[in-house]
Amino acid sequence: MSTGRVLLIECADRKGLIHAVTGVLLRHALNIVANDEFVDSESGRFFMRTEAEGSADTERILEELRSLLPEGAVLRFSPATKRSVVVLVSREYHCLGDLLLRHAHGDLNATIEAVVGNHAVLEPLAGRFGIPFHWISHEGKSRERHEAEILDVLRPYQPEFLVLAKYMRVLSPEFTARFPSRIVNIHHSFLPAFVGRTPYGQAAERGVKIIGATAHFVTDVLDDGPIIAQSVIPVDHTYAADDLSQAGRDVERSVLAKALKLVFEDRVFLCGKRTVILS
Amino acid sequence: MSTGRVLLIECADRKGLIHAVTGVLLRHALNIVANDEFVDSESGRFFMRTEAEGSADTERILEELRSLLPEGAVLRFSPATKRSVVVLVSREYHCLGDLLLRHAHGDLNATIEAVVGNHAVLEPLAGRFGIPFHWISHEGKSRERHEAEILDVLRPYQPEFLVLAKYMRVLSPEFTARFPSRIVNIHHSFLPAFVGRTPYGQAAERGVKIIGATAHFVTDVLDDGPIIAQSVIPVDHTYAADDLSQAGRDVERSVLAKALKLVFEDRVFLCGKRTVILS
Amino acid sequence: MSTGRVLLIECADRKGLIHAVTGVLLRHALNIVANDEFVDSESGRFFMRTEAEGSADTERILEELRSLLPEGAVLRFSPATKRSVVVLVSREYHCLGDLLLRHAHGDLNATIEAVVGNHAVLEPLAGRFGIPFHWISHEGKSRERHEAEILDVLRPYQPEFLVLAKYMRVLSPEFTARFPSRIVNIHHSFLPAFVGRTPYGQAAERGVKIIGATAHFVTDVLDDGPIIAQSVIPVDHTYAADDLSQAGRDVERSVLAKALKLVFEDRVFLCGKRTVILS
Amino acid sequence: MSTGRVLLIECADRKGLIHAVTGVLLRHALNIVANDEFVDSESGRFFMRTEAEGSADTERILEELRSLLPEGAVLRFSPATKRSVVVLVSREYHCLGDLLLRHAHGDLNATIEAVVGNHAVLEPLAGRFGIPFHWISHEGKSRERHEAEILDVLRPYQPEFLVLAKYMRVLSPEFTARFPSRIVNIHHSFLPAFVGRTPYGQAAERGVKIIGATAHFVTDVLDDGPIIAQSVIPVDHTYAADDLSQAGRDVERSVLAKALKLVFEDRVFLCGKRTVILS
Repeated sequence: MSTGRVLLIECADRKGLIHAVTGVLLRHALNIVANDEFVDSESGRFFMRTEAEGSADTERILEELRSLLPEGAVLRFSPATKRSVVVLVSREYHCLGDLLLRHAHGDLNATIEAVVGNHAVLEPLAGRFGIPFHWISHEGKSRERHEAEILDVLRPYQPEFLVLAKYMRVLSPEFTARFPSRIVNIHHSFLPAFVGRTPYGQAAERGVKIIGATAHFVTDVLDDGPIIAQSVIPVDHTYAADDLSQAGRDVERSVLAKALKLVFEDRVFLCGKRTVILS
Repeated sequence: MSTGRVLLIECADRKGLIHAVTGVLLRHALNIVANDEFVDSESGRFFMRTEAEGSADTERILEELRSLLPEGAVLRFSPATKRSVVVLVSREYHCLGDLLLRHAHGDLNATIEAVVGNHAVLEPLAGRFGIPFHWISHEGKSRERHEAEILDVLRPYQPEFLVLAKYMRVLSPEFTARFPSRIVNIHHSFLPAFVGRTPYGQAAERGVKIIGATAHFVTDVLDDGPIIAQSVIPVDHTYAADDLSQAGRDVERSVLAKALKLVFEDRVFLCGKRTVILS
Repeated sequence: MSTGRVLLIECADRKGLIHAVTGVLLRHALNIVANDEFVDSESGRFFMRTEAEGSADTERILEELRSLLPEGAVLRFSPATKRSVVVLVSREYHCLGDLLLRHAHGDLNATIEAVVGNHAVLEPLAGRFGIPFHWISHEGKSRERHEAEILDVLRPYQPEFLVLAKYMRVLSPEFTARFPSRIVNIHHSFLPAFVGRTPYGQAAERGVKIIGATAHFVTDVLDDGPIIAQSVIPVDHTYAADDLSQAGRDVERSVLAKALKLVFEDRVFLCGKRTVILS
Repeated sequence: MSTGRVLLIECADRKGLIHAVTGVLLRHALNIVANDEFVDSESGRFFMRTEAEGSADTERILEELRSLLPEGAVLRFSPATKRSVVVLVSREYHCLGDLLLRHAHGDLNATIEAVVGNHAVLEPLAGRFGIPFHWISHEGKSRERHEAEILDVLRPYQPEFLVLAKYMRVLSPEFTARFPSRIVNIHHSFLPAFVGRTPYGQAAERGVKIIGATAHFVTDVLDDGPIIAQSVIPVDHTYAADDLSQAGRDVERSVLAKALKLVFEDRVFLCGKRTVILS
């Protein structure tokens, strides 16, 4: 095991799990640098994330752990290489720009392979950073056809994650099923308030005093996937829908960046419809 | 006019309104200490709040203004006396306790005449502060009957405002219609997320990363009245519904206190389903 | 050991500590409900807090742990009884009122034995809640003399903690030395900005756009003790020093309450001049 | 006057100022879209910012206003053209990258003429956006000599504003005097806490639970200029100085962007050591 690898465990809870896991690591002369665990009392599931230092045989560690943990335990070491990512966009530049900036300076902890847009407007932005841009217009196409074209473009990249950086089209259940818990979306509202395409318009009409953004995994129900991160800013009666939209951009991109950092550092576990985020 | 009175104007917008209003105040030798105005572009309504110092004939000022402003203008000076308030509660102490504390130390800008509870549990708390408590149990009564009993108790106090400080029963449209824009409720979620009676349960189930509270005027649609103030706090996967409920209390009472301060200082105008809050 | 007791460990870091500790708990058939640990890389100190359920012989557990942990380890179970507290105040009611409210409704996790004020003005507030109030005026007395009188009053209560709830006098090093890490103060600024008696005046003069409050342990250097909790609110140019002071009250009391919750739940460790707060 | 120009007035306060100003605008058939004013009670200064729509002779309006306002009044219309800006940087990319992104997409309300760095590392980033980059190394040069070289580079651009986007060298009073209230700096702490070069190191040592960033005008006293905007984020004991630095980046760039938006929209007045920010 290379220095700084992360061990992730999820299984049914029972007494002695921490002792058992730390015992295996100790026998392999690994030093625990950080450790966090959580038991979801409702489902009785145990989650554990351990950063350890030292050099060891990860396969053998996993094997030993498997023999000690309850049947059905899910366990793995986080990969030693950066995650490969394709970003989907529409017209808005701020989230994509932020990701490209971080990526170019080594702060994303992932490799952006390409950008796919249903509009062409962000092609120059991707170009500034030397990232391939694929324009797959949706106009005059069925959703099925449009998504098939996107899948064709994605195929050579074999991306581990898709990031929807203000991609404004709804993906079909067939599409999302291909990337289970591997599509991260930024929704421009404080979910579950204002589901759908025009949250800022709805927020202006409702007269809310705070707006927000939500980064979540995409499931087959619109804006209903497990929430990874949320943030908000105060607004007031002087904000029309356009002002809310502009004010919301800073929140959107910082929430998306925060969520991706958690995901790419392997801190996010799924627990039913919720996420468990271990530090 | 006594020193520090506040003039409130609402009318159709047109050129020259600020000039006209400030001209009248100037002729009456009043000095403007603070001034805020807003035009809602959608409805074309003009809102203005002016704090002025000096001594003058308020009736005559209003008369002169009425002759200069568009027909249908609503204008008034805020009352020189404190607002009279009755607080409705159920079982939770934190919002009522906060209001009683502020009231006892002259920080509420209103007079709490009495507390009405559908449970008796907060009677001792009201008693600590020497405020009359009326227990009107709802058990075994129709909503109609229960509300009739509450109205009987309220009658001698003639309260200008009702404050629902975690009053956990839904009021009928007939009841709320008697206090138009004069009932302020604290709802324990970041509206419009999680309408209804169990927002913390819904929040736990949905796995949100932020919870909030909303103070709003009560209308005949549940949790749908114009929002006065909102605030939020971060939470995480370790919070069960009970933890969310406990964590939310601090937000609830500070949002309610903030909203009441705005209302009692006559800073809140209604503009359709929204509030305009002038500083 | 009664259900829900908390084990606290602090010692020099070395490999295998978590495994050793969890092994002892396992042998005593205790179930770990929550667990958090931290290694301060600068000092090489290991901190661990464990909530366990089950019934066991705490003395024997501590003995076994002591034999396994590095020499000089500090370890204890948190006490089964509530902490005894005396609150020191001057003139401002909001922090004391908040503590008395929580205390009266079982939300403080401590017992307020008495309130001591260098002014008499808060005596009626303590009286509302049936808590003894001792007025020890400082006027015409040396600090030494004044503090000696306070110590006389404190003696019969034998308080484990002193809470300075806007107590506006500086305590001498001789006094604070009697309560090492057992005095919690709320300072009305975002430390280390604006040390001393008039932080809101300093904040107004400096024109800051955010103000805050800091709860910290008291040491013999003014406003320099380890920070437990901080919070802030936005302000603007319209706030004079008095407005800042009023706006700051809500922050002060919620930060103090938050810090005391952490302290009374035995979540706060000292690590040099800093605190380590385990969840 | 073109549609949407902004009138800015600062003068000694006296009765009737708003009436006088709005009268002039009315006579010139201008419609007030937004209006904000403030009287600093300490200095007795009146500040007013008015957005008006319509077409009129701005010179004549200023002349008429000058004849009505107290002697010494400072008044102007904000320029019809975008402000010209040069950005100074050292090694960190996040603030510069953010400004370049906004600039490239028309969201900065200013024109970035060039970037000047005392290190060369950000030259490629400026290059991505087609903005000239000038590397003026400070190595082996006196501060006087280094600043003379910077001034030489700036001369042809005649920038109205300098933005210090994590420029890590202290500017001399002689240099800053050339750009009075025209240099905006982002300081990586919640001023006045942690003045100087290593705020995150100081913050880690002090064990604060919140860190922040401050955008301010540069004066000849280090980190002491009038504050334009501040923001904060929560941190805890697990953050070493490096972690604080990384966590602080998002705050730094969003605070800098917010401050520049206020400055470039002509919303920021100076009032002694403070700013007055009119909406």
